[in-house]
Amino acid sequence: MTATAYRVIGIDPGLAATGYGIVSGDARNAEAVTYGVIRTRSARPRAERLQAIHEQLATLIAEHRPDELAIEEPYVAANVRSAFAIGEARAAAMIAAAEHGIDVFEYQSSAVKAAVAGYGGAPKEQVQAMVTMQLGLDAPPEPLDAADALALALTRLAEAALESRMVGRP
Amino acid sequence: MTATAYRVIGIDPGLAATGYGIVSGDARNAEAVTYGVIRTRSARPRAERLQAIHEQLATLIAEHRPDELAIEEPYVAANVRSAFAIGEARAAAMIAAAEHGIDVFEYQSSAVKAAVAGYGGAPKEQVQAMVTMQLGLDAPPEPLDAADALALALTRLAEAALESRMVGRP
Repeated sequence: MTATAYRVIGIDPGLAATGYGIVSGDARNAEAVTYGVIRTRSARPRAERLQAIHEQLATLIAEHRPDELAIEEPYVAANVRSAFAIGEARAAAMIAAAEHGIDVFEYQSSAVKAAVAGYGGAPKEQVQAMVTMQLGLDAPPEPLDAADALALALTRLAEAALESRMVGRP
Repeated sequence: MTATAYRVIGIDPGLAATGYGIVSGDARNAEAVTYGVIRTRSARPRAERLQAIHEQLATLIAEHRPDELAIEEPYVAANVRSAFAIGEARAAAMIAAAEHGIDVFEYQSSAVKAAVAGYGGAPKEQVQAMVTMQLGLDAPPEPLDAADALALALTRLAEAALESRMVGRP
């Protein structure tokens, strides 16, 4: 791994809206490569929606060649039905990562907030503001799913930089 | 759709063990094409396990060309963590189906039990015994995940036969 070429794709998984964000560089000097959201229509069959998420993420990975994927690891859900849907969207992303041979790192929401905004209970808007600042963006990344995905990618970038320093320590 | 050539693959999704079973024919004269279980090792990364399920199901679909896929639609889970895992395994199967352009039908466990064993509260062993009889197997399909998958496929076969008769009714 070289610090400058290092790329991470962050994924905020959801059946209706999956946020993605690719960052490159290192934790102190990161930039956004691309970000956005994959939306699927609730009227379409569930399998088709999941395949659309899988296919679009696979295309993004093939095009931008991130070294790693960071994804949210949920630990609560509004209900069981919602947990199934999040799990399904997570799988669409993780399968795309495994197919391209890139490692997957999972972070709970509180860990992402702590890494990006300084404390685990930070509101989403504050995470969005910190992401905007750290990536030197002209405007806050929209929608929030994309900002969350960028925050996930920045979290992994910071962790990777730390691991790299620790490996290099005598 | 011709009744004799009609094939359904049933899937009992799970991260550690995903049962599958392919049946052909019609509801009154069905036979098992193949069945079994895909196991993944808990020591392996989650993304790799999901990709293994996805890849092996895609291979089965490509080889046996089922017309439709029947999958369990869970409505409860032991806990949220378990719901995420079931959702992930479900997605691996549904994405494989969508990639091959086959429709997915979802059935709750009680509907499968009612269709195969006559009542929604039937124990798994009774479902297994009815599957053995309906498919004319020499021995009960093992493990239970495979028997459940065959039961799902038989449920869809019965429903498809009913739809076909209804369409044909003057």
